[in-house]
Amino acid sequence: MSGPVTLTTDFGLGDPTVAIMKGVMLSIKPDLKIIDVTHEIPPQDITRAALCISRFRDYFPEGAIHVAVVDPGVGSNRDAVIVKTGRYFYIGPNNGLFSVLDSDVEKIVKIENPDYLMASISVTFHGRDIFAPVAAHLASKVPMEEFGNSVEKLEKIDLPYPVLNNSGELLGEITYFDNFGNAFTSITDEHLRMA
Amino acid sequence: MSGPVTLTTDFGLGDPTVAIMKGVMLSIKPDLKIIDVTHEIPPQDITRAALCISRFRDYFPEGAIHVAVVDPGVGSNRDAVIVKTGRYFYIGPNNGLFSVLDSDVEKIVKIENPDYLMASISVTFHGRDIFAPVAAHLASKVPMEEFGNSVEKLEKIDLPYPVLNNSGELLGEITYFDNFGNAFTSITDEHLRMA
Amino acid sequence: MSGPVTLTTDFGLGDPTVAIMKGVMLSIKPDLKIIDVTHEIPPQDITRAALCISRFRDYFPEGAIHVAVVDPGVGSNRDAVIVKTGRYFYIGPNNGLFSVLDSDVEKIVKIENPDYLMASISVTFHGRDIFAPVAAHLASKVPMEEFGNSVEKLEKIDLPYPVLNNSGELLGEITYFDNFGNAFTSITDEHLRMA
Repeated sequence: MSGPVTLTTDFGLGDPTVAIMKGVMLSIKPDLKIIDVTHEIPPQDITRAALCISRFRDYFPEGAIHVAVVDPGVGSNRDAVIVKTGRYFYIGPNNGLFSVLDSDVEKIVKIENPDYLMASISVTFHGRDIFAPVAAHLASKVPMEEFGNSVEKLEKIDLPYPVLNNSGELLGEITYFDNFGNAFTSITDEHLRMA
Repeated sequence: MSGPVTLTTDFGLGDPTVAIMKGVMLSIKPDLKIIDVTHEIPPQDITRAALCISRFRDYFPEGAIHVAVVDPGVGSNRDAVIVKTGRYFYIGPNNGLFSVLDSDVEKIVKIENPDYLMASISVTFHGRDIFAPVAAHLASKVPMEEFGNSVEKLEKIDLPYPVLNNSGELLGEITYFDNFGNAFTSITDEHLRMA
Repeated sequence: MSGPVTLTTDFGLGDPTVAIMKGVMLSIKPDLKIIDVTHEIPPQDITRAALCISRFRDYFPEGAIHVAVVDPGVGSNRDAVIVKTGRYFYIGPNNGLFSVLDSDVEKIVKIENPDYLMASISVTFHGRDIFAPVAAHLASKVPMEEFGNSVEKLEKIDLPYPVLNNSGELLGEITYFDNFGNAFTSITDEHLRMA
């Protein structure tokens, strides 16, 4: 068994969009294991999705394929990419979603080969037409190089990051509140050890 | 592997009702793959469920079993049916949920054989007592004819449909708003090609 | 195939916490079947979770592992336990969540063996560090006795229970409203047969 594939989107659970992605994947690989991370990323909030990815990714088995679709630029000329790190694959728009991967990135491929996409690509639903079929083919052991040429640059967004000021104070910010009302901040264990 | 089974209901995710249906199915067929489409159909909104089915159905692999339970008439004398189309099976109440299947229908069976139902049938939860066990048995290759006799008539509801007026204008209506606030209308690609 | 594992929590679906538990389980047992019951138990509402468990448990196949994490005492000295009944295993904090199991309990083990836990145990997320790995190892046929020593006492909370008064009236209370607005009460079929 390969995969699993994880899904992180801003699609919500009231529309059939997530199920459509799953239907596309199962049409290619009927025994694929698919895990929902969340579909409640606030619409088009790339920062929130990037922070979410940084929280869950390391808990999945090696070889997991993390698909993230928070894609305000869908239909524009932003690239669709597969990113390989030491342990995982990531699939999604190259719009900053994968800013947290950083130094761990081994290879980036721009998705272009039509053999692995839906026959007709819409301008509004690349989750269905590009990301779902690519994830299923990658889970079926199609080599990453088959999907397109390598690209060098992973797009980055500025993620909330703490600052150490002249008085030796570490200044962070609250990045979100979880289901219990706990505040998460931009200050991590690692920052505290360094400070 | 057969299936998968998809689930479209108005049960919400706060109650254990969806999980109960899954438990019933896995008791019959432990390796069954079950995909949630949505459980957030507005309570008893058959029209919304019918439109939802029309959006996702074609993206699933051939042989998929689409279970839909939006069932204001549960416990009354409305029939429970299995509908076979060219590629899929549909299971649910015969109350208009399957109005979109139309010309594609090959066979309809009224579910009556107690061998494939829960021993005791409640008047309020046919998702558990009828539709879940029938889906699991159908996925286990029980022939459709085993569940009951053929019926001719698929109940229909009036779905929103655009009108071409004397001035050559195509008049549609907004049928719902998706998670991003996009308006979906009753005018499809096909209508535009005809107009 | 063993399991399935069911999950009942108050984690919500907006955070990656549920997916983290699934990632931990799949890292141990890649083919594990995991069923979400609900993650919308009101935060820290043990009574609601206990009543939820009483509704769905019996519909799952024998050998199912029911994990419940509603855990206001996480990080305190409350025990983490595995409870075996005639047909199922239950895993969670020993805080009253399993009050409904009662007479059916065959054995209770306090979870202590670090071989089956995450290497580092946080004070806030035992779902990830204790309950998820224990569920996956139990589903992998590790004997219950391996996880720790037997304990005698299952903690109980007072669940809503009807009272038969001197006038022969059975007095119950509404315990919750489902997705359709139906009221569930503390009076069960069994009480009505006795009354």
